[in-house]
Amino acid sequence: MTTMENPVRNGVDTATLFATLDAVKGNNEIAKFQFRATNRWISGTHNQSTIHGFYGAMQEMEHQQPFTYDADHPAVLVGKDNAPTPVEFVLHALAACLTSGLANIAAARGVNLTEVESTVEGDIDLLGILGLSDGSVRNGYQQIKVSFKLRGDDPEKLRKVVEQSRQRSAVYDVVTNGVPVEIEVDAG
Amino acid sequence: MTTMENPVRNGVDTATLFATLDAVKGNNEIAKFQFRATNRWISGTHNQSTIHGFYGAMQEMEHQQPFTYDADHPAVLVGKDNAPTPVEFVLHALAACLTSGLANIAAARGVNLTEVESTVEGDIDLLGILGLSDGSVRNGYQQIKVSFKLRGDDPEKLRKVVEQSRQRSAVYDVVTNGVPVEIEVDAG
Repeated sequence: MTTMENPVRNGVDTATLFATLDAVKGNNEIAKFQFRATNRWISGTHNQSTIHGFYGAMQEMEHQQPFTYDADHPAVLVGKDNAPTPVEFVLHALAACLTSGLANIAAARGVNLTEVESTVEGDIDLLGILGLSDGSVRNGYQQIKVSFKLRGDDPEKLRKVVEQSRQRSAVYDVVTNGVPVEIEVDAG
Repeated sequence: MTTMENPVRNGVDTATLFATLDAVKGNNEIAKFQFRATNRWISGTHNQSTIHGFYGAMQEMEHQQPFTYDADHPAVLVGKDNAPTPVEFVLHALAACLTSGLANIAAARGVNLTEVESTVEGDIDLLGILGLSDGSVRNGYQQIKVSFKLRGDDPEKLRKVVEQSRQRSAVYDVVTNGVPVEIEVDAG
């Protein structure tokens, strides 16, 4: 293994990053993951998910701790505002995926970051989910806009890092291209 | 206003739910919402989103408190495991949206729920995001499976409630059909 000048950049351990890439190149099975969440209804629009176990690198794995997240509707949408709405978690997921990705990509390219902030805005017309549209209004977001502010090395390099993150982002792919979802019901 | 026999069912205030539907029928502008998240990079794959303000019902609004959520990668994906990965938050959003929706729909139909649990599994091949595929492996989930367990009234009614929730879910629509995403970069 080559010793690198700066194995940690932007908080990314680039030595481990490149070693992981080499390991996956050697055995593609390592790259097959399954992520999971379990959700439990509490009352009304309030419910809670737990995220803990996942499959990856050819074995069952766990996060260091179980993470729990509530979701609810605000009062204006007939909830108790115990937590954000489900659609707001999609915005968090999108911002987080693009940001994690660009930190890794910048590190791999030797580009230094000092600051990364983003705002994500999703426009939605609730006529869809309320069943009050004639079918012309969709249920989900009509459009999403992500605004990044980056500081660090050369602005042109920073812009290219964002573009590469967009091209490699799992959540961006899910949100822009869609995924087949199967729903199974055990109603006892 | 008609007095209803059971204005709260499954923790859903059905009187308010129907009043909200009436209000939106009277003025479609009320239904135009914009949800938002802001995200700040911390280090490496670790970052944090804040969800607080949103626009809806023809005014700027706020959740009762700002909610913050971290995201990170686990050690096996070169992170510090401070929080779930961004793609796991998509699973939470999907389970939460279907569950909030079915609680509302069941209440509106007079169907009682005693228990709702779900498990969401998303299969992903990281060859895509690692840039190690020949282009045949997508970045995002290849498929997602949601398994619901419901208890309450007649099983057939429970199954229909889930089906109606699927047909009216914002996150299900986003995840299955995709949304246009625009990315703007201020690189100073």
